Formats: sequence, structure tokens, C-alpha cells
Amino acid sequence: MQSHLAEPATATSPLTADELVLMDRYWRAANYLSVGQIYLLDNPLLREPLKAEHIKPRLLGHWGTTPGLNFIYTHLNRVIRARDLSVLYICGPGHGGPGMVASTYLEGTYSEIYPQVSEDAAGLKALFRQFSFPGGIPSHAAPETPGSIHEGGELGYALVHAFGAVFDNPDLIAACVIGDGEAETGALAASWHSNKFLNPARDGAVLPILHLNGYKIAGPTLLARMSEEDLTHLFRGYGYEPLFVEGHAPERMHQCMARILDRAADGIHAIQQRARNGMTAGCPRWPMIVLRSPKGWTGPKEVDGKKVEGFWRAHQVPVANCRENANHRRILEDWMRSYGPDDLFDGEGRLKPELRALAPRGERRMGANPHANGGVLRKDLSLPSIRDYAVAVSGAKRGAAVVQTTEVLGQYLRDVLTRNAQNANFRIFGPDETQSNRLGAVFNVTDRVWMEEIEPYDVQLSPDGRVMEVLSEHLCQGWLEGYLLTGRHGLFSCYEAFIHIIDSMLNQHAKWLKVSAGLPWRKPIASLNYLLTSHVWRQDHNGFSHQDPGFIDLVANKKADTVRIYLPPDANTLLWVGDHCLKTWNRINVIVAGKQPEPQWLSMDEAIRHCEAGVGIWSWAGTETTDGLSPDVVMACAGDVPTLETLAAVDLLRTAIPELRIRVVNVVDLMSLQSREQHPHGLADAEFDRLFTTDRPVIFAYHGYPHLIHRLTYKRTNHRNIHVKGFIEEGTTTTPFDMAVLNELDRFHLAIEAIERVPGLKEKAGPALGALRDKLAEHSRHVRSFGEDMAEIRNWRWTGGSKPSGL
Amino acid sequence: MQSHLAEPATATSPLTADELVLMDRYWRAANYLSVGQIYLLDNPLLREPLKAEHIKPRLLGHWGTTPGLNFIYTHLNRVIRARDLSVLYICGPGHGGPGMVASTYLEGTYSEIYPQVSEDAAGLKALFRQFSFPGGIPSHAAPETPGSIHEGGELGYALVHAFGAVFDNPDLIAACVIGDGEAETGALAASWHSNKFLNPARDGAVLPILHLNGYKIAGPTLLARMSEEDLTHLFRGYGYEPLFVEGHAPERMHQCMARILDRAADGIHAIQQRARNGMTAGCPRWPMIVLRSPKGWTGPKEVDGKKVEGFWRAHQVPVANCRENANHRRILEDWMRSYGPDDLFDGEGRLKPELRALAPRGERRMGANPHANGGVLRKDLSLPSIRDYAVAVSGAKRGAAVVQTTEVLGQYLRDVLTRNAQNANFRIFGPDETQSNRLGAVFNVTDRVWMEEIEPYDVQLSPDGRVMEVLSEHLCQGWLEGYLLTGRHGLFSCYEAFIHIIDSMLNQHAKWLKVSAGLPWRKPIASLNYLLTSHVWRQDHNGFSHQDPGFIDLVANKKADTVRIYLPPDANTLLWVGDHCLKTWNRINVIVAGKQPEPQWLSMDEAIRHCEAGVGIWSWAGTETTDGLSPDVVMACAGDVPTLETLAAVDLLRTAIPELRIRVVNVVDLMSLQSREQHPHGLADAEFDRLFTTDRPVIFAYHGYPHLIHRLTYKRTNHRNIHVKGFIEEGTTTTPFDMAVLNELDRFHLAIEAIERVPGLKEKAGPALGALRDKLAEHSRHVRSFGEDMAEIRNWRWTGGSKPSGL
Repeated sequence: MQSHLAEPATATSPLTADELVLMDRYWRAANYLSVGQIYLLDNPLLREPLKAEHIKPRLLGHWGTTPGLNFIYTHLNRVIRARDLSVLYICGPGHGGPGMVASTYLEGTYSEIYPQVSEDAAGLKALFRQFSFPGGIPSHAAPETPGSIHEGGELGYALVHAFGAVFDNPDLIAACVIGDGEAETGALAASWHSNKFLNPARDGAVLPILHLNGYKIAGPTLLARMSEEDLTHLFRGYGYEPLFVEGHAPERMHQCMARILDRAADGIHAIQQRARNGMTAGCPRWPMIVLRSPKGWTGPKEVDGKKVEGFWRAHQVPVANCRENANHRRILEDWMRSYGPDDLFDGEGRLKPELRALAPRGERRMGANPHANGGVLRKDLSLPSIRDYAVAVSGAKRGAAVVQTTEVLGQYLRDVLTRNAQNANFRIFGPDETQSNRLGAVFNVTDRVWMEEIEPYDVQLSPDGRVMEVLSEHLCQGWLEGYLLTGRHGLFSCYEAFIHIIDSMLNQHAKWLKVSAGLPWRKPIASLNYLLTSHVWRQDHNGFSHQDPGFIDLVANKKADTVRIYLPPDANTLLWVGDHCLKTWNRINVIVAGKQPEPQWLSMDEAIRHCEAGVGIWSWAGTETTDGLSPDVVMACAGDVPTLETLAAVDLLRTAIPELRIRVVNVVDLMSLQSREQHPHGLADAEFDRLFTTDRPVIFAYHGYPHLIHRLTYKRTNHRNIHVKGFIEEGTTTTPFDMAVLNELDRFHLAIEAIERVPGLKEKAGPALGALRDKLAEHSRHVRSFGEDMAEIRNWRWTGGSKPSGL
Repeated sequence: MQSHLAEPATATSPLTADELVLMDRYWRAANYLSVGQIYLLDNPLLREPLKAEHIKPRLLGHWGTTPGLNFIYTHLNRVIRARDLSVLYICGPGHGGPGMVASTYLEGTYSEIYPQVSEDAAGLKALFRQFSFPGGIPSHAAPETPGSIHEGGELGYALVHAFGAVFDNPDLIAACVIGDGEAETGALAASWHSNKFLNPARDGAVLPILHLNGYKIAGPTLLARMSEEDLTHLFRGYGYEPLFVEGHAPERMHQCMARILDRAADGIHAIQQRARNGMTAGCPRWPMIVLRSPKGWTGPKEVDGKKVEGFWRAHQVPVANCRENANHRRILEDWMRSYGPDDLFDGEGRLKPELRALAPRGERRMGANPHANGGVLRKDLSLPSIRDYAVAVSGAKRGAAVVQTTEVLGQYLRDVLTRNAQNANFRIFGPDETQSNRLGAVFNVTDRVWMEEIEPYDVQLSPDGRVMEVLSEHLCQGWLEGYLLTGRHGLFSCYEAFIHIIDSMLNQHAKWLKVSAGLPWRKPIASLNYLLTSHVWRQDHNGFSHQDPGFIDLVANKKADTVRIYLPPDANTLLWVGDHCLKTWNRINVIVAGKQPEPQWLSMDEAIRHCEAGVGIWSWAGTETTDGLSPDVVMACAGDVPTLETLAAVDLLRTAIPELRIRVVNVVDLMSLQSREQHPHGLADAEFDRLFTTDRPVIFAYHGYPHLIHRLTYKRTNHRNIHVKGFIEEGTTTTPFDMAVLNELDRFHLAIEAIERVPGLKEKAGPALGALRDKLAEHSRHVRSFGEDMAEIRNWRWTGGSKPSGL
């Protein structure tokens, strides 16, 4: 298929004959090493005829995409050297591992990081053996791969990671290879629109390289079978200038790729120069490359009479029975020898010097680009004192102040933005809800990033904004991941129910963090921070579809040293938690906090002590006496609405049964409930027993699905007396208080449960129990309208004693 | 902005002056009812001046998108009547509820389903009151909405639902309105490519209507600010013919929309005619409409001096303080009166007859289209007998047959396809893994659907295929949902780790099912069936990124009457489970079964008895005697790999400690572990106690995260003696057996745990314990290569006694 954009093959040939030969040899070396990784245990340089025992007993790996990846890497090396560019190589194709490993080995970075994989025959043997091998490396780009910020396991996130990496990195280019399989995913399809958030004056550039090799595992790909006309339309529609490189004859392809890469680099440079000279308006049309090359390019054409090169049979291992079948082994040997290993490696197995000279030097090598190991570039944020934003709470009038807790955090975040504006290393991400989630104070100092047209009546939009809003949780998550992985900081604020959209991205990021933590050369990156607001208990008219607290459960499944879950009950605790999360690294921090007006419970001093402990007795709220007797019942709570309902329940109980000894325990840091062996934040058993007793009923009001509390406390002495109320999947369009009632988390249900669980109390407190049940019934008759709850619910205020906090 | 595709306004005006006036009045009626729903408690026809008490105390709802939705509905009614079309209305915009409710009320379907919302003044009052009101209806299209198959809560799935609905429905057109907010999501961006799977000869048509009203909740949308040239490129690139309708003056807009809708309907008809006459080759270029109209069209232009119509301030409630602020109330009253209610409704509050005549009749009304209530159209599948596919297993040689269990299911599915080919109501969905997941037998009778070019060397591709493969889990899930919701059947086969990509879609579908089950007029639809294979224990070189069994946990959070989770240990049990799931309705069934060769345990008779019970003692595998003594230990297992390792552990124990009384319990139906109060499949407590004892240690080998077993058995007598081994987030590139070791799920760990948990046994069995620990150490020295496990692991076969099964 002839491109209508690329010049005819007879046009300028940017490579001299010598250059072309050298580059082709370099490419052949990378291909040779890629095949070696898939097949060989020994005889890495083919210095003797290939025997069965040289071949891995089980052949695992993916050849199909690899020669194209190597081709791109080789050509990027040329433009990096020619223009002294700083380039990140993002390897989208799922199983492109052999390629990226081969190319970083050839440039020397692999051996610098892993000295046992040395630049000689022994190193080659180690390189081959470890690939797709027990205790070795996976068959895709991964944390172990030098130069990678991107795991090739689950597909869809290459392009969004690339954009995240170049935001606020004006001198960086992310060359992002996108396989035509990955291009079918939802996340990738939306990612193309990221260009509308890239400001050429302050950000770097992304060079997308769509690699159409035609096939997935067992069939063709959608984009590869689109006509060039449709592809041109599609990418022009997305706002790019597509440049086509198509074919298979190496010589012509080298010249074409060199020419097109020069055009792309010129285009990027021109766009950036214009913008940096103040001449840009609107979204520039960035170049992108469509590389159409055969699947399994340069591999066996046919095996056993069946088409392999240029077909899906080249996807994994093109010739399969090389240990058992001498004919297959011969095909493999011929194939590997076709690259001319003796022409590539010297007697010791070292890449010949004229080829080594083709790789960039030092940190310009893509495997050594420091942006790919963001921890080495990470600068701590400058953070204001949370005391400057404290909500005044006095022991005498707890609950009197009613504020929107996220609005208070918004003020703090505003100043985080200001203090770090110079370093340009903090951004806020989210669907279109920054204002709706009450973080609007940030718009006093910044705007939403917007590169398309801005109308005169628009507000809070600018190309220089640091708030990134797009109605795609995938893009928010992926941009933030890319931003963090390259050494910066951020916060993702989202509707609680819809954060499930990125469950699988969270999984993959958690895996990346776990594996990276085991690699000493990877330095810690800033934590991935979520603020989940507009939560399950305050959906009102949005109803059931917006009610889902299950993200916490997903996160709790991850490795304990990676995840933290915080449920601050008021503004001062939220300030502490938010500030704390921004100071941590290599974590996934989930903060759940409502955006609606809520009473405030703790002074800043109390909040700090409480949050540092993670969990504590709110003695001001309980009715325990100081006579050393155990409480009759522990009322525990985690989450803002559960805390409110618990305190209201205590009020009811205190009035109805003054002699009842109630202890109130509030949990901010959910992981403190787990045993210390399971989680570093876990309370020691003795401390847990001190708080929750060893034998008293615990009525635990919890924000999410109840079983998580059971699971976290499973090993605790008193676990069988813990009775959890939480979301039991009862949702609808109704008032906030009625939502609590439907899920039995309201003050009446909590108080009734307490009476029923304290041995002997039910009999003594019959009238009180009856009165509470009557109140429940009365409530149901009252649920008529938003804002029309029973007056005693609407007007309830905490009236507990003014004794000093025991925190 | 002038369209370059639409003819100038002076061109043909398809509506007569009378028609135009009538249609405009109909549109005004829908708009009037929409505003009424958002604002009014009383005085629905404005027969008296508007007073504060007529207005809802809390105003909730979304006006911005609604007039556009009503405009589209009105115009679709015209083409339906003119051409006798069967049209589904898919309302993508998240909060378009008032529009779809208003339009189905006007055509009469709403009152037929909900007689209390009658067609008179009292009914109007009820209609208004219930909207976004406690105990009423949500502010988006929902199961409660007549004519909807689509919940407007989470965004992204409108278009993929539309395609799912029309597959195999040749006479159906899904008119799918996509908001410009939703258009930013990943799922939607990928959905446009669904046209490449739509065969005009056998399927219906989708008419996408991209509704650009310019703004999300607080800022502009990406697509609305794209130039018309870029939009044209983009949608031509996706393979559509975009037709533009742009403006705000009603008269011109009515004529333009009528003309464009006629063109679209003509285009669809022509494509279908050509294809059905055998003249199609490749993908036709289907028409789509881009409707650019002001946000909050026909609403207040300004409020308090601030721009509202045509801006994001029109998103929700354009004028907010109508109860308190007389000026605001006047704006509202003027706005509502601008629609001329007396010109629309008669004295009784009934839509005037000349307007009512504009709606189609009977099932042609979009609110009454039977495809939107798929249960009424659902035909049971014709299923073959599973005995025809049984793997022969004899009591004497259990474990001798080694087969790929999913390969056996593939043969069964092949015949399901054949038997239901005539009804054309069964499809298989998945990323590109049908073959890789060993279901390849289906390709003996069908192909992958493929509408793009087919090369001569391609295999198993055809426009008539019934296997839908695309590398987007979002599309697979969404198509299947649309297919099920319109009364058909299907199966989604997927890699276990990557099914998390559709977590949030599963949540929304589960919510849809729960709410629908409470609506007597919605008839049951076929279950959503997942086959998760390529699971956590068999990832080999794919490594950690492909290892995640957490989807089960997500599903287990759903309402008990909706979800089922099956872990068949071999082929015959998988056959029973697969067959059973295809017979169920209104469920989400998750089947987890590996694709690698595994020993087979149960004969078909045994498998049927075992699966019907859901859980049972495998007495042939245990060493209990018939003397009535309790076992010393229960070895429980759920999942194919855990079952294998448990049986191998029993082998080790039996040899080492012949006197140990071991009971083996296998669990197929995970929900049987829960108490009967929690789940309809739950075992009665007495039965659970009979199987698991009340006091003996239970070593439970489980496929996924261990805590789920604790959670499900939390209320059982013996729960504190249940010790679960499962996935503890330890993954890497290694052999299958080593994966089990890393997570302590292997035979050695299980046997050691058993010895340690049986009181007093540790002391007696010291040498056996030492030998097992030595084996573990020996294994670690052996993990060198795939296929090189210790011989005794590799060659292990079940050698248990040949006593008859006690099942």
C-alpha cells in the first residue's frame, strides 16, 4: 500500500550508504538478541552448530512485535544523537519484552544495572536464559526493564503514560509505540485526545508511533485493515498529522523511517519554538507515525508449509519444536544466522565498536534516561502548615461548626499549588468535578488546562492551568501514573462509585510498585493519592447507580506495604491525612471524605494526635467512668457519616439509659485494625484489646461493605463480638438519612443493636428499645422530600459533656 | 458555525408549515414536563400563579441536556410513523431522565406501566413529584424508565449497548444519543469501532446522534470545541458519514433535523437493502448525526446577570432559589409559560389530541418497543445433553485422564451454536482469546465476525461469524449486555486478571438487575455468564501482571440473589456448570476454570450429583473409616489447582501417616459456603457442620484471595478452625508449581499445615514433617526451567484406593 503522505521511495535518502549498513547491522543485532532470548539456553553466539540441548525446554515469548520495536529503537538512537534529544521509549505492545531488553543491552545500560548480564558471551548466555524463565524476567516490558515506566501486561495505557511523563518536562520527548492490538482498547482510544491538554510552551512532546503489524494473537486487527484514507482521517480528526512508513524491504524502510523521523522531530521542534516564542494559539497539530511492517518481520516466512511472517502465526514462537524436530531446529538456526552474528559481535561476544558507536551516550541512552526512573528526580513538595487551615473546634461545643470538609482541603491544596509553582511538579486530576467536589479554592491560583478555543465568557480555563479535568477516569489515572513515575506529585479526586472504572489500572500500578520496591536501582516515587468524595451516603437524587464503596475492598487486597486507606471524620483530620499522603512515597493512599456540610469534632491538636495513632478512644463522646470498670459496649466508627450516626446513637443511649457505660472508638487509618504482622500500621494485639476490649460487644459503624472490618479484625481476641453495620447494597433515590436507615447504619439501628448486644440490657431497657423502634417507624412515614427529615434528625446537635478530650 | 455537509437552510424543507407547528408544540410539551419534573410539587398546569409552596424544597435534576433529548425524541417519532420503523431510544447523557420520562409519558406508555401517573392533572402532579424525590425515580434513565435498556449513571456505554441490541435484530434501529461528556470516556471512544462488527444483512442498524451541547458540569467538552473539519475527519476515520444539525432557532432546526433524519433513514435503508440483496462488500459507511444545540436550550438566557443558556450554568438547575427568591420564581414561571401549557394540554391536563397523534402507535412507541424489555422476547436456548461430552473417569483410575477442561466445554459450545443457529440468539464474546482459551471447537461451525477486508490466507473470519473478538473488554462486556438486555444469550470468555477492566460495568449491570427484579413489568433476561480462564495459577512467563483473582471478590459484594461463582475442578463439572449457567436468568455467573491439561476426577454421574449439591465430601479421596469417628482433619478445596494440590497433599499424608483420618471436601459453588440466610445457595448450618465438622481443623485450599472464604464462613460453627491458603499477592515469572509454593498453596504446605493443626500430631509426626520441609527446600533448588519441576511433582498421579465414590 503506498502512502499518500510519505514521499516516493526515490525522494531524499537521509542515510548515507555507510550509515544505512551500520544501522541495519545494529537492528540485526537487536533482532538476533531477541530471538536468542526466546529460544536459547546456551551457544549464544552460534559458535557451534545448534543442538537440542541449547534450546529452552519450553519456548515462551513473543516474536511478532519485536523486530518492529527494535527497528524503532535503532532509528530513535539516530535522531537522539543527531539532535541531542532526551527521549523516553514507551513500549506499548504487550509482549515486546525481548526487544526493549535487547536494545538496552546493546547500548550498555542493561549490564550497568545488572552486572551479571555482562557484555560478553557469558552475559549473552545469562541474558538469553533469564527471559521468560523461572526466576527470570517477564516477556513484556516491566519494572525490571531499564528505561521503562510502563508495564506491558494489561494493554491500553501506553499513550496516556507518555503524556503524563512529558507534562511539565519541556525538554523531554516520549516516543510511544502503540501496538495495533492495544489500539483497540477503550483507554487507548480516548488517550489520543490527550494532545488537547499538552501545552508546547511548558510541556514536552509525545511522538505516537502506531505500529500496525496486522495481527493479534489469532486474527487481524481493526486498525491494520482500515484503509490509509480512513486512518488519515481518524488521526487528523484526533488532531495529529499522520506520517506513514510502510513496507518490508529493509533498505527502503530504513531510508523512509529516517526521513519520517526527521520530519517528526522537525515538526515537534517547530511547534515548541513557536509556542515558546509566544506565537501559539490553540492546539498544534503534532506529528505521529504510522509504521506498517510485517508481523514477525525478518523471521521465518513459512513453517511446515504454513505462512508465518506477516501473519498471526508469528505472534509468539514462530517455529515451535526446535528441541525435538531437527527440521524446526534448522529453520531456527538459519534464521538466527541470517542476522550474521559474527558480523555483529566480536570474539568475546561484545558488540562491535562501530555498532556500539550508534548508541547515544550516558543519560541520552533511552535505557538510562533519568525520567524513566522518576525517583531519582523526585523533589519533595513544599507543604504549608495544616494548622493554618484548621477549623476551630472547642471541647465545649463539639459538632457546632458545620463545614464542607473538602472545601477546607481545597484551601490547603490551593497553597500547595502556589508553593510548588516554581518547581512545576504538582497537578490535580479528575473528571469534571474539582469544583463540585468543593476543591474550588484551587481556582484562585490556577485554572483548568485548556488548549482548545476559549470563549470570552469561559472561566477558569487556560493553557497554563494545573488542574486536569477530562470526563475519563482512565485518562486521569494514566496521566497521573505517568506524572508520578517520572518523579512528580499529584492528587486524583473522583466520585467514589466511578473510581471502579480504573480498578484494573490500580492493580497494575500496585504490581509495578511491589516489583519496583525489590529493585534497588529504582528509587521511590511519590504516592498515588485518591480523594474519593461524593460518596455512597450522600447521593440523594443520583440514586443506586452512584452508590458503591467497593474500591476500598479492591485496594485492601493489595500488598500491605503498598496501600493505606483513610476515613477522616472531619476537616481537621482530613487536613492531616491529605498532608501526610503528599509526603509519602511508593504508596497507594485512598482518602474517603464527603463534600457535604458536616459537624466538626476534633480540634487540630486532637486531630493530629488521633491521626498519628490512626485509631483512638473519643473519651469526650463516651460515657465511661474513671472507676476502672470496662465499658458495657464499644461504639466504633470509621467514616464521616458513620461517625455522625454513632455519636447520635450515643446521644440516644445516654439519654435513655444513663447508667450504660459506652466507649466510642474512631478509626481514621483503616489498616490499624489489622494485626501488626499483616500490616505495618496494624495495632499491636495488646493495644487493640485495650481499645476494643476482649469481651464486650463492639457495634462498628463502617463506611463500606461490612465484611472488610471482619476481615481486618479476624485475628483479634474480641473479633466474634464485633458487629458491623455498613453498606449492604441497599441503594435508591432517597434522603441521606434514609440511605443510612435502609442499610441499618443509622443512629436508631446502632442504638438498638447496642441494647440488644449488651447482655441482659434488652430486658431492662424494654421501653427505650420500644421508643427507638417507634422512631424508626416514624422516620419512614416522614421520608417525603429532600430536606424534610424528622425535625429531631434535622436539628440534632451533639450535646455531650464538655469534659476535656481524653485523646 | 455552518455545516459543510448539511444543505443551506433554504434547501428542501421536509416539514409542512402545519407539521412544523405541531412538532414544535410536541417538543414544547416535552420540555414543559421536563421543567415541571425538576421544579414542581404542585400546580402542574400553572392554572394559578406560581407560589413558593408549589416548588420542591430541594431542587435536583439536570436541565442542560434535556431539551436536546426531547427534540431528538420528537423527530424520531416522525420518522417512525412515516416509515413504520422499530426504534430503540438509547439515552446516553447521564442525567437525561426528565426527557425520557416526559416523552414516554406524552406517548402514553408511562401511564400504561404506572397507572398512578395518569394522563390528567393528578397524574402530572405525580409525575413531577416523583422525579429525583425520595422513594421516586432517579434523575437519569434507569430500569424504571419505559423504553430504556440503559442506565444513565456511569457514562461510556451508550453506544456499545446500542450495537449489542441490534446484533441479530435485522429490523431494529437503535437511535443512540451520546452526550459530549460521555464522548470523552474510554469505553465510548472505542465503541465507535463497533461498526466493523455490524453486518447489515443480518443485523439491525445503529444511528449514533452525538449531541454537542458544549459543556460538562463546569467546563467545556473536548468534542464541542473541535472544529467541524476535525469532527468530520474523526467520524469519517471511524467509518461513519457525519451529518450535521447545528443552531438554535427552532424553526430552522426542526426543518434541518427532519431533513437530516430522513437522509440518515434513507442511508440506513439503502445499506441494508444492498446487503440483503447480496451486494455488500466490506464495511458500509453508516450515517451518524452531530447535533449541536445550546445547553439548556429554550431555558433562561441569564439569571442574576450571568449567562445560563448555552453555558455550563444550565447543566443542572438553571434558576436555583425559586422557593425563597420571588425574582427567581418569576423567571421559572415565565420560562414554563413560554411553552404555552394551555396550548398543549386540555382542561383535564391531557395532551391535546392533535399532539397525541404525533406519537407512533402501540409497540412502535419507543417507550413500548419490546426490545427494550428483552425478557418478553427471550427464548430459552436449545441445549445438548452434557453427557454427550463427558470425559470418561472410572473410580479405579481417577486422575488418569489428563485433558484441557475448557477444550471439552468448547465442544459443547460448538453444539449450542449449531442448535440455536436458526434462532440466532447466542454469541460468544471475548478479547482475541477464544482459541487460546481452548474453545477452538466453536470454529468448526462458525467464525469470528469480520466486516473489514479478508485476505486469502485468513482463517475463521466471516461477516456471518457468531464469535465476537475485539481487544477491548469494554466492548465485549457492553455488546453482551446490550445483547442480553434485548432478550438473547451469550458467554464472555476472558483472561482472569484483565476482567477487572470491566469491574465498573459489572457493578452497573448488577444494579440494573437488582432494580429490574423489583419491577413486575420487566421480564427476566438471560444471565451474564463469564468464563474466566488463563487464571492466576497458570501464567508462567506472563508473570505478576497477569496474576489477579480479585474479580470474584468484586462479584461477591453484590446482592446474593444476583450472583453465583463456580469453581469446577475438572471437565465434567465444568460441563455441568456451563450448561446450568446458560439456563439461568437475571444472574451474573462467574465460572473460573483453567485451560491447561489437568487430571480429571469425577465421572459425569458424580459430577452432576456434586454440582447439584454445590459442595460435597469426596470420600474416595479421603481416608475416613466407616466406624463413625470424626475425621482428624478436613482438607477442603475450591478451584482446579487447589483441588489438584489438595489431593496430592492427601497422598503425601496418607503415605506418611496412614492412621490419619482425612476428609476431602470439594466446593464447586462458592456461595454454598454462606449461610442460607445470606444466600439462597447457602448450606443449612446442620449440613455445613456435617461436612466441615464443628471442631476439626479445616485446611482450605482456595483459588483466590483467602479472606473471601473466611468471610463466607464467618457465621459457621467451626469457622475459627478454618485455615485458608490462597493467593497472597505473591506473583512472578515462574513455573505453575512454584507459584503455588510462593503462595503456600502447594501440596507440601497443605500437608504441613494439616500436621501442625491436628492437635498432638506435630509431636508424633516429626519425621514426616521434616521430610515435607525437605521436599519444599528441594523444590526451590529445582525451579530452574519451565517443565523441569522435580520428577515426583511432574510425574505425580493420584493413586488413591479404588473404593466406590461416596458422592
